[in-house]
Amino acid sequence: MNCTIVILGATGDLTKKKLIPALYNLIKNKKLEKFIVVGVARDRSQNILEHSKKFIKNLDSKTFNILKDSFHYFSANFQNKASFVNLKKFILDLEKKNTLPGNRLFYLATLPTHFEVIANQLGEQGFNKKDNCWHRVVFEKPFGSNLKSARLLNRGVQKVFKESQIFRIDHYLGKELVQNLSILRFTNIFLEPIWNKKYIDNIQIILSENFGVGDRGSFYDKYGALKDVVQNHALQLLALTAMEKPSSLSTKVIREKKLSVLKKTKLKKSVFGQYEGYKKENGVKPNSSTETFFSGEFQINNSRWKRTPFYILTGKNLKNKLVLIHVEFKKLPCGLLKGVCDFIPNHLTIEIQPKEGFHLHINAKVPGKKDIKPVKMDYCQSCVEPNSPKAYENLLLDVFQGNKSSFIHAKEVETSWKIIDKIKKQTIYTYKKGTIPPQANVILKKDVRWHLDVD
Amino acid sequence: MNCTIVILGATGDLTKKKLIPALYNLIKNKKLEKFIVVGVARDRSQNILEHSKKFIKNLDSKTFNILKDSFHYFSANFQNKASFVNLKKFILDLEKKNTLPGNRLFYLATLPTHFEVIANQLGEQGFNKKDNCWHRVVFEKPFGSNLKSARLLNRGVQKVFKESQIFRIDHYLGKELVQNLSILRFTNIFLEPIWNKKYIDNIQIILSENFGVGDRGSFYDKYGALKDVVQNHALQLLALTAMEKPSSLSTKVIREKKLSVLKKTKLKKSVFGQYEGYKKENGVKPNSSTETFFSGEFQINNSRWKRTPFYILTGKNLKNKLVLIHVEFKKLPCGLLKGVCDFIPNHLTIEIQPKEGFHLHINAKVPGKKDIKPVKMDYCQSCVEPNSPKAYENLLLDVFQGNKSSFIHAKEVETSWKIIDKIKKQTIYTYKKGTIPPQANVILKKDVRWHLDVD
Repeated sequence: MNCTIVILGATGDLTKKKLIPALYNLIKNKKLEKFIVVGVARDRSQNILEHSKKFIKNLDSKTFNILKDSFHYFSANFQNKASFVNLKKFILDLEKKNTLPGNRLFYLATLPTHFEVIANQLGEQGFNKKDNCWHRVVFEKPFGSNLKSARLLNRGVQKVFKESQIFRIDHYLGKELVQNLSILRFTNIFLEPIWNKKYIDNIQIILSENFGVGDRGSFYDKYGALKDVVQNHALQLLALTAMEKPSSLSTKVIREKKLSVLKKTKLKKSVFGQYEGYKKENGVKPNSSTETFFSGEFQINNSRWKRTPFYILTGKNLKNKLVLIHVEFKKLPCGLLKGVCDFIPNHLTIEIQPKEGFHLHINAKVPGKKDIKPVKMDYCQSCVEPNSPKAYENLLLDVFQGNKSSFIHAKEVETSWKIIDKIKKQTIYTYKKGTIPPQANVILKKDVRWHLDVD
Repeated sequence: MNCTIVILGATGDLTKKKLIPALYNLIKNKKLEKFIVVGVARDRSQNILEHSKKFIKNLDSKTFNILKDSFHYFSANFQNKASFVNLKKFILDLEKKNTLPGNRLFYLATLPTHFEVIANQLGEQGFNKKDNCWHRVVFEKPFGSNLKSARLLNRGVQKVFKESQIFRIDHYLGKELVQNLSILRFTNIFLEPIWNKKYIDNIQIILSENFGVGDRGSFYDKYGALKDVVQNHALQLLALTAMEKPSSLSTKVIREKKLSVLKKTKLKKSVFGQYEGYKKENGVKPNSSTETFFSGEFQINNSRWKRTPFYILTGKNLKNKLVLIHVEFKKLPCGLLKGVCDFIPNHLTIEIQPKEGFHLHINAKVPGKKDIKPVKMDYCQSCVEPNSPKAYENLLLDVFQGNKSSFIHAKEVETSWKIIDKIKKQTIYTYKKGTIPPQANVILKKDVRWHLDVD
């Protein structure tokens, strides 16, 4: 892979914590051949690579030196045309010196307020044309803050770049177990016949964090859990879990299937929460009504899922750092075993993080007794592959290869915002750190509980 | 549980290796309260318990002494009425001394040629009447050597005992994972919709031994693999795997369901083998044409299974000591993934011995790549419960409790013999120890292989 990687917003946390370590791993795993990295930000200069070091696992100096030699910093003002004229010169010089063909990846790791202006600047410098090379532009989330702003942003960006050049990141789609979801569902014959309302009682999607807003207070306070997590990550997980069987796993087909689900998805019930002490966090308004917790029942109005609850729960300062999809099958009717009426229903849990894997809880006989108890059939991917690639590594590689299957199409962004825009925020319940508002339990069906621990 | 346990054939291998150790464990686990054991055989006296010691795991002297104190030997000639008159006196005396109510279990661990005569002798002494106590009689296999002899034996025995008093043992039905089969199939909602010809490609039942006839040559040579293993163990496993969903897991309902399957079961193809050197084994005729290996394709002519092959393979001196049921699901059609046409089909393997457990092979994404490979979701019961009870322990307990669900009804024995009687023995292929006759592979469908190793 020969290319020029331009990171705009190079002094931010994302670059330091995620992008540089991902590039490091791609180099180490020989996924990047000839390349240069240009870090662009307003500041004069920054020791970006040095700051990244502590986020790189098992750092070896040989790989790090390759990264160092290929890294270049460029100071620019995103509003300023002259900055981009100079940036172009800077890039062309470097490409010439390094005999690079001119494939260019622009990664917008900036505040979303800069997205449109940067897209325009890049366009004015001709960084959107193809000749024999490719130009691709990556947008970090959030992409818009409601349907209207997302639409405007899409139209603005699409004036400069074709949709095929635009990579809207939802880094959850880069996670190994999320990438595994469609493979699991559609290459295993035994899942399809039971993946519907007849056999599935409810599905839970949990995205729980055990820390607060940290230094993201001022950003987070403008969004809240619904816009920061549900609109993108949670609804994407829901769509991948619920979508119809595709005729192929190609980008286009999967996107259409996800879209069909999202178009039929609607909130039924919800509970909002805010953790105790949130209003005193740095950057948060003292009278903030931003939710740091959301739980809701969604329903998908199609023949596969009609009346099956899809429960979503997400929040900060909860008990565990945990992302999972929990599929609970229906209870069997009574009567099969004399006197036994309450088998634990089967469930399949897909653990996305921190552990990667999946397990199926099934009923089996207790050895030496006639009793029945659930046992766990387990596949722990992290146990087998402790160094499986991180989300950003997978996603950057996808961009290099022009594979859009793990990125969000304009239509998906807009459809998700449509769902979110319809949700009316109600009472915000305060909750203590490590707990959830008790009201969140009330929205669940009888006998169902939130799976906030991995069992 | 208060009872008198009378073992007829007390000096044989079965008593030493299986029954005494099972009784020991039942005492240890407090499943037997007040009881005496009377060992009956022709010999004058035998140090039966001492000979058993090496077959008892983690022997503790306290438990062993309880067994020793309760054990009594009685020398008898099974043909001789006077022997049984004396045996009765002997038992009544002991029961009086031990204030036992007179519940009596007669375990016929003798050669099958003695079954009928012993049943008659017991009847003549009134050991079949009930008053306020129970009389139960346990028959070891083989029960008959073809349909005709089995029928005669059933009628003879049924003249003395009611069918409800008769416990025909197939010790495979006492194995934990076999007892688990119905629980697995019918208390897990996700299995029923896929447990049929639409989703299952073929099912293998493997009963493989890695040793020869040993000192059982003269007995084995009269039976061979088909009568020694297929008629009972293999067909029972087939029936439990294939039977229709029962309305309850009661003895009667399960028996009817098993019978329905056996009535529709037919051999389609078969290959017979004899291991190299068998004819020179102790007790084997030098020109013996007894098979030590059998493999066959059976089909069940009902709507659930029509045209689904049930492959049975059993033999002595094969590579592994292994009993398993391997359920292979159908291949998915091509086209889902561009260029990928050959997913490994899913399979569910139920390991009966030596390891107890089950695992499901499913397809998942290879971390960091777009490739798909099968991974194993595993439940290893022996890992969780290394001391789960042995078959004879489970079965003896069932007899004490009058639970017949793991015993073979007269009709089942006869129906199984009907299947076996129809099988024409053909060429007997010689095979080297540790291998199978290559012809056995030819009876399998394209792309299917025998699962003679646990993977």
